[in-house]
Amino acid sequence: MAPQYAPSLRSRLPLVAFLLETIFLLLFVIFVKIEQHEQFGRESDSKLFISSYAEFQDVHVMIFTGFGFLATFLVRYGFSGSGFNMLLAAMAIQWAVLINGFLLPQQHHRREIHINMKSVVEAELCAASALVAMGAVHGKANPVQLLLMALVEVTGFVVTQWILRALFNADPVYSIMLLHVFGALFGVMVSWVLHREGIKPEHEKEKTDRKTGLFAMFGTLFLWMFWPSFNSALVRDYRWDGGLKLTVIYGTYLSLAVSVVMAMSVSMLTSSKGKMNMVHVQSSALSGGVAIGVAMTAVHAPWIAMTIGFCAALLSALGYRYMKNHMLFAFECHDTCGVLSVHAIPGILGWFAHLFLRLASNESTIAVQFAVYHICVLLITACMSLVMGTATGLFLKWSIWRPQQDRKCFDDQAFWEFPNLVVQK
Amino acid sequence: MAPQYAPSLRSRLPLVAFLLETIFLLLFVIFVKIEQHEQFGRESDSKLFISSYAEFQDVHVMIFTGFGFLATFLVRYGFSGSGFNMLLAAMAIQWAVLINGFLLPQQHHRREIHINMKSVVEAELCAASALVAMGAVHGKANPVQLLLMALVEVTGFVVTQWILRALFNADPVYSIMLLHVFGALFGVMVSWVLHREGIKPEHEKEKTDRKTGLFAMFGTLFLWMFWPSFNSALVRDYRWDGGLKLTVIYGTYLSLAVSVVMAMSVSMLTSSKGKMNMVHVQSSALSGGVAIGVAMTAVHAPWIAMTIGFCAALLSALGYRYMKNHMLFAFECHDTCGVLSVHAIPGILGWFAHLFLRLASNESTIAVQFAVYHICVLLITACMSLVMGTATGLFLKWSIWRPQQDRKCFDDQAFWEFPNLVVQK
Amino acid sequence: MAPQYAPSLRSRLPLVAFLLETIFLLLFVIFVKIEQHEQFGRESDSKLFISSYAEFQDVHVMIFTGFGFLATFLVRYGFSGSGFNMLLAAMAIQWAVLINGFLLPQQHHRREIHINMKSVVEAELCAASALVAMGAVHGKANPVQLLLMALVEVTGFVVTQWILRALFNADPVYSIMLLHVFGALFGVMVSWVLHREGIKPEHEKEKTDRKTGLFAMFGTLFLWMFWPSFNSALVRDYRWDGGLKLTVIYGTYLSLAVSVVMAMSVSMLTSSKGKMNMVHVQSSALSGGVAIGVAMTAVHAPWIAMTIGFCAALLSALGYRYMKNHMLFAFECHDTCGVLSVHAIPGILGWFAHLFLRLASNESTIAVQFAVYHICVLLITACMSLVMGTATGLFLKWSIWRPQQDRKCFDDQAFWEFPNLVVQK
Repeated sequence: MAPQYAPSLRSRLPLVAFLLETIFLLLFVIFVKIEQHEQFGRESDSKLFISSYAEFQDVHVMIFTGFGFLATFLVRYGFSGSGFNMLLAAMAIQWAVLINGFLLPQQHHRREIHINMKSVVEAELCAASALVAMGAVHGKANPVQLLLMALVEVTGFVVTQWILRALFNADPVYSIMLLHVFGALFGVMVSWVLHREGIKPEHEKEKTDRKTGLFAMFGTLFLWMFWPSFNSALVRDYRWDGGLKLTVIYGTYLSLAVSVVMAMSVSMLTSSKGKMNMVHVQSSALSGGVAIGVAMTAVHAPWIAMTIGFCAALLSALGYRYMKNHMLFAFECHDTCGVLSVHAIPGILGWFAHLFLRLASNESTIAVQFAVYHICVLLITACMSLVMGTATGLFLKWSIWRPQQDRKCFDDQAFWEFPNLVVQK
Repeated sequence: MAPQYAPSLRSRLPLVAFLLETIFLLLFVIFVKIEQHEQFGRESDSKLFISSYAEFQDVHVMIFTGFGFLATFLVRYGFSGSGFNMLLAAMAIQWAVLINGFLLPQQHHRREIHINMKSVVEAELCAASALVAMGAVHGKANPVQLLLMALVEVTGFVVTQWILRALFNADPVYSIMLLHVFGALFGVMVSWVLHREGIKPEHEKEKTDRKTGLFAMFGTLFLWMFWPSFNSALVRDYRWDGGLKLTVIYGTYLSLAVSVVMAMSVSMLTSSKGKMNMVHVQSSALSGGVAIGVAMTAVHAPWIAMTIGFCAALLSALGYRYMKNHMLFAFECHDTCGVLSVHAIPGILGWFAHLFLRLASNESTIAVQFAVYHICVLLITACMSLVMGTATGLFLKWSIWRPQQDRKCFDDQAFWEFPNLVVQK
Repeated sequence: MAPQYAPSLRSRLPLVAFLLETIFLLLFVIFVKIEQHEQFGRESDSKLFISSYAEFQDVHVMIFTGFGFLATFLVRYGFSGSGFNMLLAAMAIQWAVLINGFLLPQQHHRREIHINMKSVVEAELCAASALVAMGAVHGKANPVQLLLMALVEVTGFVVTQWILRALFNADPVYSIMLLHVFGALFGVMVSWVLHREGIKPEHEKEKTDRKTGLFAMFGTLFLWMFWPSFNSALVRDYRWDGGLKLTVIYGTYLSLAVSVVMAMSVSMLTSSKGKMNMVHVQSSALSGGVAIGVAMTAVHAPWIAMTIGFCAALLSALGYRYMKNHMLFAFECHDTCGVLSVHAIPGILGWFAHLFLRLASNESTIAVQFAVYHICVLLITACMSLVMGTATGLFLKWSIWRPQQDRKCFDDQAFWEFPNLVVQK
């Protein structure tokens, strides 16, 4: 038993974070301005400012409290789960504001990036995409690796967006909702490349307990409750667009309500002892929001939204129960938070629903055209994600980043001081 | 010691939930539409949409996070407390949208139910009524029983609403605030019928600890903070109605502030050791919101609201301290969350305050007329609640629902997998 | 080992709270009215009501959930941390509404205090000032002492405001943001006067654990996320003021994002083992919000806000790491939550930034004038705070308030019933 302690990151993390933060600061000095007289569509500004700010706060709560506490479910990894989530999201948002401004300028300013509610919400959604990817390597990478991974992921996602919009003239609202698919595939690839032999299906520290399950429940609820805002935040102009914003809000709400019921039922049904699994329920309850997010612009009736939520939770709960261990044995790919079941599969289900609903409502020539476009969008997103994920994994495998040992996985002790251990009576 | 394990619900819960969800889905297919061009009073729509959505989110947070985490106070029942709360609320909301649409149509559509912010907020308030009832049987019924109970409770509450509005032309805002009285009496009756001999005043698992007390504090705070939105959500048209909405908001706010102070004082004063009881404080701190909710349309000065909060917390804290065990000994009725002290008594106090304030401000003939109407409303609500609660209790006593044994009460182990027990070193 | 139990507060707290609450109630009867037809600037009312209410709710959440859960970080003091926070804030708000109305009337009513969104938000900010002061004596004073201290602190802060506005015609938005400096200095002086010999740098109960660290994380996040609303709540008229409100919101947001990154980096860098300290990170992550709050009216570019956040977190993290024990040894002043590092130092940094930015953007004569005014404002605030803090400390030292023994510090057991200890198997 030679190496008792995890390698210290004292010479790595502060340096990397400090350097990156300084670079961001310099870029902000040169390029970024606050939009003083924000234009909110054709409305008088104050009114729509109010709406945007409230929605932004909902999304903000989801990113920091929702994702942050969902990540505390491991019994010894709560500090890292919530703390690193905060660090990564704070960095990812700054970077996303910059790179979104460079690649996807919203107004034609001369080399200036203007901060407004829209750009901030988009930055938070890009950060969400990075946080989804984090889920796959949760507990198995150190904060330096996570930080680099988050920034590469955001870059990849924004570049994919740029390709989709430039080549295919894709709808921004639709293409940004592919964040779940992009993030999940990216994360899974990184996890596959970084695979450790020591991660067995039953790692002694990869478990939940009564209290961490409740902390995770808290994160789940904040994601679940504010998901209608997450999906609708970028759908502006609810009046001129046939009530699309309202449809998205009510659709997401109903889809999530059905998801909860299905997640619990399936979790109990597939358990040999007839008991529910808290982690499965928490994850699958959210799948309805993912699926409806991808399909939302094509959904016009509440029951369609509910059906999508129904199927998403069914697939997601089955996937979590049966696929996670299978993936580990068959492909040596360990996916801590089951992002494949929670984000990728419901996302692709939503994509299919979107395709099907459009095909059903259009005549044949337009339908075929749409199908080709729709398939291309998914393929490009998936390819970009898989390729960049693999590359990122290889880059992070470099031992200069000082990964922790297998037995220090899923453990806060490697990164956080525990003063109580010192002062123990 | 024959039966070690609680009976498995594997063949019950998934079946019941799946069946009900399918029925709801079919009813949604036939009847429910999303209101595309929502009419928000005489205002231009966007402005009032914003207001409604923010208030709806406040209420939404109360139902899922507030009630959910308030229910985690028992030391071994946290997963069930928050998890079943989510399941029941999600089902109750769907059912409430349907039955509200059938019985209490808001606009005259031909056999169509239109979803809009008002209908969703009303559905959430009906779900709140069911969650209040759950409090009385908390920890003593399995999720199948809870699910059926929630749906019957919502049905009963909506039917009562319908009677009050059809026969007495009752004000919708006032009648829906009787949800506390209806829910509490309903729950207590169910608990009385389902009484178990094994539930002693000091069941070994019916206790709180340092951590679950904090989780419950968290739920309490979210209920407490957003209660002004809960009471005012259905009070529209704050401009044309003499500022009623503002009065309700500030009144609830002040009433709750006084409640906190009184709850802590009384809890310390009535303790033999001069210490506060966290569960009593959490419950009684909310009583001001309940009382002012019933009285609110008659309250026009801040000090009246504060006096109501003062009396409500006083009665509620005394009730929690002395009445709970008395109820158990004298009537064999065990009320886990003390809903009688927290919801029924403050609700009836609010009713008296309402009556008194109206009598004081009107001349005698109108006053007598109002008193008769007011007494009838309470009597009908109470009778409906008691009768339906008893009937529901008898229905749930049926052994087909597989209730857990006495010693498995207040215990998650009967319903949830605990992976950590398996992997214990 | 003579005194086993902490002295009972049964004859103190209920009496004091009841008396104060009755006095408040009487003052409300005489003076306070709800503003029926609220005037929201030049806008039509409904629109701005919506905005104010949402912002008020954000601040409300910060005061009760944010401060409340941030105070649960001590392993045995969670009930007191969150419970007393609720009690003090509820009392402080009522008192602040009254005393603000007496001293700083907003409209010229004849001896009437009108409650409206602005007055309620100001009352909450005054309560925040008291809660900052509480941080310094956290765990070392009983609730009677805390209650009296909170009310004196609020009085002192409002009187200081009145002096600043009457003598110096200070900008209300700027002067209220000095709440951090006033509260922190006040609290530190009280803590210095109340110093106990038994409080060593390593009191056995002054520590955090895995779960209380997460509860505190939760409070931290709610403060962190809603801080933009905290700083901007009193900045009205975002349209006519050159977009100041938007600038404040985005500035606070970016400043806090940079703070998080710096807090974590510095915490790891200054640790001998290369590990982060959760308490330091949580505290320093908030320092950017404090600093930008004091400087905000002079900040017009995002990078300036980010630089302020950068420096604030750097100073705050260094201060927390090195100054806390130094203060205890050198001055016999124990500051439980490190309010000096988290509120006073970033506040003064913000003050310097404000001064510097104004000097840089004005011509010399105006600049000198401003500098004199600016220095006077800080000096008066600091003097008032130090003097009143010392006086309050001497008053609270009176043994009639029955302070707990040294060994009962940082312990809930002195104030809360723990039913589980009774029913232990």
